[in-house]
Amino acid sequence: MSGVFGVYSPSPVEAADLTYLGLYALQHRGQESAGIAVFDGSAVRVHKGPGPVSRVFDEASLKGLPGRVSVGHVRHAERGAPSAADAQPLVGLLRHGQLALAHDGSVVNAGALRRELLEAGVVFQTETSAEVILHLIAAEAGVSLEEAICRAARRLVGSYAIGIVGQGRLIGIRDPLGIRPLAVGRSGDAWFVASESCAFDAAGAELVRDVAPGEMVVIDEEGLRSLRFAEGAREAMCVFEFIYFARPDSVIDGKTVHEVRKEIGRRLARKVAIEADVVIAAPDSASSAALGFAETAGIPFDVGLATNRYVGRTFIQPTPAMRRRGVHIKHNPIVETLRGKRVILVDDSIVRGTTSRRMIRLLKEAGAKEVHMVVASPPFSHPCLYGIDVPSSDQLIAAGRSVNEVCRLIGADSLHYLDFESLYQAVGVDGRRLCAACFGAPYPTPVDGGASQGGDVLAKGRM
Amino acid sequence: MSGVFGVYSPSPVEAADLTYLGLYALQHRGQESAGIAVFDGSAVRVHKGPGPVSRVFDEASLKGLPGRVSVGHVRHAERGAPSAADAQPLVGLLRHGQLALAHDGSVVNAGALRRELLEAGVVFQTETSAEVILHLIAAEAGVSLEEAICRAARRLVGSYAIGIVGQGRLIGIRDPLGIRPLAVGRSGDAWFVASESCAFDAAGAELVRDVAPGEMVVIDEEGLRSLRFAEGAREAMCVFEFIYFARPDSVIDGKTVHEVRKEIGRRLARKVAIEADVVIAAPDSASSAALGFAETAGIPFDVGLATNRYVGRTFIQPTPAMRRRGVHIKHNPIVETLRGKRVILVDDSIVRGTTSRRMIRLLKEAGAKEVHMVVASPPFSHPCLYGIDVPSSDQLIAAGRSVNEVCRLIGADSLHYLDFESLYQAVGVDGRRLCAACFGAPYPTPVDGGASQGGDVLAKGRM
Amino acid sequence: MSGVFGVYSPSPVEAADLTYLGLYALQHRGQESAGIAVFDGSAVRVHKGPGPVSRVFDEASLKGLPGRVSVGHVRHAERGAPSAADAQPLVGLLRHGQLALAHDGSVVNAGALRRELLEAGVVFQTETSAEVILHLIAAEAGVSLEEAICRAARRLVGSYAIGIVGQGRLIGIRDPLGIRPLAVGRSGDAWFVASESCAFDAAGAELVRDVAPGEMVVIDEEGLRSLRFAEGAREAMCVFEFIYFARPDSVIDGKTVHEVRKEIGRRLARKVAIEADVVIAAPDSASSAALGFAETAGIPFDVGLATNRYVGRTFIQPTPAMRRRGVHIKHNPIVETLRGKRVILVDDSIVRGTTSRRMIRLLKEAGAKEVHMVVASPPFSHPCLYGIDVPSSDQLIAAGRSVNEVCRLIGADSLHYLDFESLYQAVGVDGRRLCAACFGAPYPTPVDGGASQGGDVLAKGRM
Amino acid sequence: MSGVFGVYSPSPVEAADLTYLGLYALQHRGQESAGIAVFDGSAVRVHKGPGPVSRVFDEASLKGLPGRVSVGHVRHAERGAPSAADAQPLVGLLRHGQLALAHDGSVVNAGALRRELLEAGVVFQTETSAEVILHLIAAEAGVSLEEAICRAARRLVGSYAIGIVGQGRLIGIRDPLGIRPLAVGRSGDAWFVASESCAFDAAGAELVRDVAPGEMVVIDEEGLRSLRFAEGAREAMCVFEFIYFARPDSVIDGKTVHEVRKEIGRRLARKVAIEADVVIAAPDSASSAALGFAETAGIPFDVGLATNRYVGRTFIQPTPAMRRRGVHIKHNPIVETLRGKRVILVDDSIVRGTTSRRMIRLLKEAGAKEVHMVVASPPFSHPCLYGIDVPSSDQLIAAGRSVNEVCRLIGADSLHYLDFESLYQAVGVDGRRLCAACFGAPYPTPVDGGASQGGDVLAKGRM
Repeated sequence: MSGVFGVYSPSPVEAADLTYLGLYALQHRGQESAGIAVFDGSAVRVHKGPGPVSRVFDEASLKGLPGRVSVGHVRHAERGAPSAADAQPLVGLLRHGQLALAHDGSVVNAGALRRELLEAGVVFQTETSAEVILHLIAAEAGVSLEEAICRAARRLVGSYAIGIVGQGRLIGIRDPLGIRPLAVGRSGDAWFVASESCAFDAAGAELVRDVAPGEMVVIDEEGLRSLRFAEGAREAMCVFEFIYFARPDSVIDGKTVHEVRKEIGRRLARKVAIEADVVIAAPDSASSAALGFAETAGIPFDVGLATNRYVGRTFIQPTPAMRRRGVHIKHNPIVETLRGKRVILVDDSIVRGTTSRRMIRLLKEAGAKEVHMVVASPPFSHPCLYGIDVPSSDQLIAAGRSVNEVCRLIGADSLHYLDFESLYQAVGVDGRRLCAACFGAPYPTPVDGGASQGGDVLAKGRM
Repeated sequence: MSGVFGVYSPSPVEAADLTYLGLYALQHRGQESAGIAVFDGSAVRVHKGPGPVSRVFDEASLKGLPGRVSVGHVRHAERGAPSAADAQPLVGLLRHGQLALAHDGSVVNAGALRRELLEAGVVFQTETSAEVILHLIAAEAGVSLEEAICRAARRLVGSYAIGIVGQGRLIGIRDPLGIRPLAVGRSGDAWFVASESCAFDAAGAELVRDVAPGEMVVIDEEGLRSLRFAEGAREAMCVFEFIYFARPDSVIDGKTVHEVRKEIGRRLARKVAIEADVVIAAPDSASSAALGFAETAGIPFDVGLATNRYVGRTFIQPTPAMRRRGVHIKHNPIVETLRGKRVILVDDSIVRGTTSRRMIRLLKEAGAKEVHMVVASPPFSHPCLYGIDVPSSDQLIAAGRSVNEVCRLIGADSLHYLDFESLYQAVGVDGRRLCAACFGAPYPTPVDGGASQGGDVLAKGRM
Repeated sequence: MSGVFGVYSPSPVEAADLTYLGLYALQHRGQESAGIAVFDGSAVRVHKGPGPVSRVFDEASLKGLPGRVSVGHVRHAERGAPSAADAQPLVGLLRHGQLALAHDGSVVNAGALRRELLEAGVVFQTETSAEVILHLIAAEAGVSLEEAICRAARRLVGSYAIGIVGQGRLIGIRDPLGIRPLAVGRSGDAWFVASESCAFDAAGAELVRDVAPGEMVVIDEEGLRSLRFAEGAREAMCVFEFIYFARPDSVIDGKTVHEVRKEIGRRLARKVAIEADVVIAAPDSASSAALGFAETAGIPFDVGLATNRYVGRTFIQPTPAMRRRGVHIKHNPIVETLRGKRVILVDDSIVRGTTSRRMIRLLKEAGAKEVHMVVASPPFSHPCLYGIDVPSSDQLIAAGRSVNEVCRLIGADSLHYLDFESLYQAVGVDGRRLCAACFGAPYPTPVDGGASQGGDVLAKGRM
Repeated sequence: MSGVFGVYSPSPVEAADLTYLGLYALQHRGQESAGIAVFDGSAVRVHKGPGPVSRVFDEASLKGLPGRVSVGHVRHAERGAPSAADAQPLVGLLRHGQLALAHDGSVVNAGALRRELLEAGVVFQTETSAEVILHLIAAEAGVSLEEAICRAARRLVGSYAIGIVGQGRLIGIRDPLGIRPLAVGRSGDAWFVASESCAFDAAGAELVRDVAPGEMVVIDEEGLRSLRFAEGAREAMCVFEFIYFARPDSVIDGKTVHEVRKEIGRRLARKVAIEADVVIAAPDSASSAALGFAETAGIPFDVGLATNRYVGRTFIQPTPAMRRRGVHIKHNPIVETLRGKRVILVDDSIVRGTTSRRMIRLLKEAGAKEVHMVVASPPFSHPCLYGIDVPSSDQLIAAGRSVNEVCRLIGADSLHYLDFESLYQAVGVDGRRLCAACFGAPYPTPVDGGASQGGDVLAKGRM
């Protein structure tokens, strides 16, 4: 999972500064690396590196990126250990001139395409799908840049929301299934593309519309043009964006994410009848669903777990001996909310189950009489092929286990999942337009992109 | 305002690691500097520096602090610009051996004491009250360390909660008015002192009780001993700890802070009758009061402003030109919660008023029909002399202005403050046991500690 | 100008540690960036970055590079501003597997090759010739790695001494003219390649022999094999290595550099008859020549300028106002050596002339009665096309000026250059085996590699 | 051993920038820490920290130190491990206002004075003698700052060259024996004090004269005033400054250090008759003596060991296994100078003997037929009490051993030390005016300052 943000402004503007703000708003989509590439009128400059935006950029590095057209990226590691060399945007010089490319998503047939390209004499310097895409574009001779990108895109199976700066233009494309989100924004005569609309707010722009599945938008001095490069048999927007990934203040497919989550909570409350004294949210993302649940269930919403927001990447993990002392690092129960109470704990999803088990134990140690777990999604049972970083099936607690078994493993007094029907109604979209493969629905693409990636290992390390 | 944390363990334990966890839990009390001093059986070692705990400490620095007795400090700048040299704990060698001292509070007569000590031949190397206290202790010849500390404390006017490591012991003292909080915790045979009980939770310990106003606790291999070094005419616990400063999961004077704040909200709702559609909390500290208000008023609580929690100290502030673009950096309205709604915005206090004005404008731009501001404290009209970093009177929006004037300045449709009576009832303490001087109640100590500090400027800069 | 160092060891050895030592010994060949790539038995890992070896590597980064086969690089910027992305070794995955490649030299036809490769669909991610070479190798299908490298090399015009790690082997190649040096070393069963023999000494190995012009050496578990991939019409070893670039303790083409320089000094003394009291060397590289001159001239050698060896990359340059105060930063005259004396100042070369002018002024201000400048090379009048970073002709003080004019411009009382004949005799090599193009001899390759590089600009910035 | 540099300028000047240059010139006197304190017209600011000047200062930190009066310090650790808290200048506020104090030397009775001051109620925050001196000054009531400093100085036994900024003045004092050097410089209307005259050259100033033993110079808007605060029975200038410590371009007591060292070499050559082919200098400080020796002995001087000047503080030491490989890190023999030759190796002194042994082995491995060691000082047999960091007696190879024994231990073919008479003649000063205690001459002060420092340990660690 990654975040993409791009700017095109005909009038003078510091595109890098706006991109910096946009990437800050998308920081929740990835903190492994960050980067901004800017076209300064004659060449593309890039600054990127490992870590969150705050660590990669300072005033000097932003000042070193003048220009009115830019694309930025925040990145969650793709499969395998993160490699600093894989930071994006990727910048390459090819027959169409210099391109800077930032990709969110996961190309299922990347391995097969890499093998094919190696046979054709290509040199790979990163392990990213972004580089595969760059080589596919470079291979298209005798056509315009736009056409080369379209042809390259048609070779890809999987998910991709891509921002490209090339030939002085800003280009955005979204895969034919529309798995990963991508939207267009505007402020005066400046155009923007972003993974989520909250990034437009951050940069002082307004959401215009989503980029459609299979659409390419090209922005230059004549404004925005739209091309349809592929017609999907169906759509398959990632439903997990609504459940967990996107920021609550973002608007996707016309819906405010916070409101979708509240509606999920409301629908859960209508189906699940539990006698309880208080509804609390699992930190830090389940507040919206918990508020909706509490409202419909008529049970008070309260804060049950205080969060230490200073505990971040640089926190030194306690030793096992310290852990056994019962240290409460990141979350601390608020005893008065919990003691002697029947507690409903709402969370967005259960992946491995370890966090749920730890939270429930915390709540019980703080005096909760009962803890009933309500989950704002169906059981998470299958790996995601399209960019969400989840463990393999054998580590998914719901894979091959009944609800009762999961309930027992996490130590809850009862466990309640959302059903598909309620999920689709809350999102307000026909289930056939969504990808819910992680919850057991069919994968919307061929699953094997052409076998394993064995041997395709590239150098790891710091650039 | 600062945070203090100390450990004494008769059995082997890495006191520095526990102190690290405790300081993380107290990080909200100051991020200007952090430090830990540990007695290793023969000498005290200290590691300290500017910035939050995460920046000052890494694994190597913690490993360099072996020992079972320690004291740590996080610091908000005292008056004036912060100076790296002023990081605490302050470590000095004096006739009683090596002492490490960490101080939370503000000594009102520090200027007068400094002048007196200078006359006596003292050399000051910092601008801290902590150093004044160290010199007062050093001046006491022919008495035990405990007695020297008691004598020194009796010379101080103002607020102080102090942790000291000396002669292999851990000592905690709290001023006779009990302005700043200090508590004792325990885990097995290890004892702890901390500014707030949430730090005990972080370190796997349990709150035993508050240190009493005018009490000194001395912890050594024989356990905890208590001395009363001063009898106050009254108590004057800082009420602002309950309203804003302390963490919601802390317990002070037997009350959970979250519950006190909820009760403030409930009492406000009983007094303030507003027709409204939704109650929202000002980020990030007014949730408890807003929940209490919503519950009693019977108006739904919701999230109106999303917070970008990645925006921290290293964020590069946008230029004024960027500001004019209407960028939404730290907070972003959730339109669906606000559009066409009559909104009650609950905040803990209004200091300068600039944040309130900005939030209300954000809400209205997002479509709120009305914004009614409800404040969980009386008008903040007077500077704090006891350690809370507030601007001078002329920058306090409520100083010399009527509620209506403030309401107009911040752009609210109505403005409602908490009354003193409700505040005291919510805290559950007789008003005469509290300091509410910042809200216009009398200052509990002589106000002038002996005139200005002119000329007492010490070198600033990095050590 | 860069430095290359490679290790192949059949028995377990930390190749990265040995490469670290080797690169330290080659540090004088480039401080813009440094890097080491190691084959760990299954994949190549690389660590590289801007700055000298001391800044790029620490214990952790070396520990992260296990393996017995490695190649390292220190780099002086090629044409144009340095780009962090251009640090080497360059690691790529191509049809022959993963290659790590480190290049010293300058490929004259790089621009033409880049244009041709772009037409063929290649993506360039750096501006290095190393990447051009990598793409040329990748283009060779159906042949062994060695053969692919040979074919690629035959396409190159210019200078190249290259170390490659691929398919578990260490490969070294040197251009058919042998412009840049490259040698083979050995220690027990481990083999080494290095730009200069001083790097073998640093790593505890011994010089075996130079790699011959047009030779490729391939080192694997069966030892060293040699291939001749090109037969040059002539050789053209860079004579400036002997004059200035190489370390005095290195042995090139069988000659110790220090001894060659002393012999240059001796031959100069035989030709140049100056009445003088003392011979001093320009810091920091002309000592050898000055010693030889003094010995033969029978004039005492002494130290005239003390060097502050702490002034390095991070020194903050004084403002012009400070400069006008006459500050002596890097060099300071030793008055006793100079006052009232007729001084012979020996330097290895005069490029721009600014340093000579400044030194001569320093010496005169310190009381030197006369300053006669003796230069251990012919007039530097032409740019280098083969990797030595010199300014364009219009900044070369000797370009288009008589010796008398140069003498007057630098403020010397007399100026004496080395003649070609003496140079060749001192080096002990037929002038037709040397490249002395910078001194006005013919360039040994076609001069234009295929016109300008316009448009081939790649993104600059930090990776 | 440390370095002191101070500036007083009546006309506007960036004193910090000049001090930065001066400290760079004195960097050889200590790299443990560096600092600059500047009086900005109302207060003293200081910036200091661990490491060399290049690491402690950047443009921002120098910009943060405006003002015309300053004092700076580079520091070699005093006894024991270095502590970052001990960086100087030390800044304190005392009855005489703010003082910044920088000290070179070693106070023999520091322990006794500390105990006395502790009894008087003093708090020590560092382990430096500088702090002892500050407290002694603070104790002097009712007198001027100058008088207080004089009285404090009279209590000190040992060596001290001190720069002080206080009350807008720059003050320099030198101990009555004149053990450590201190000089006065001038440039226009600006005055300077410095440990060595080379620092004046660096800052564009000129040496005026040495500060006399027992003299205090006070510089303010009325220029320089001189006070004699103590009359010594004798002088005892440290002879080791001439032999090793001072920079060759410095002038001390009217003698250029380089010339003194050459004269030592000449006198050695007159006494020592060795048949040899070449004279080489031990890197990096014995060149002057070696040149003088070669000149008088009529044996050619040459370079026998090349130095890798990039190997500095951050170099990662090779493992013992690497060492056994025979790696040549810092020095590498130049074989051509040595092979088959009878070599005279000149060094300034032999302390532990380990370096001599290693160098001699290097030379023999490179083919030297004989290695005769000539030492430009008498046998180093006693520890220094006055600031030079040498090991204890049991680690001094010459302590209790005959010349023959030392010769055998270091593996030389013969070993020749300088005699006292020649030393005094070369320095050009009556031996009774010099301190040569490290060579076995009587210590010029009482040796025991009042017993051990047991218990006086202060906190170590980073400030």
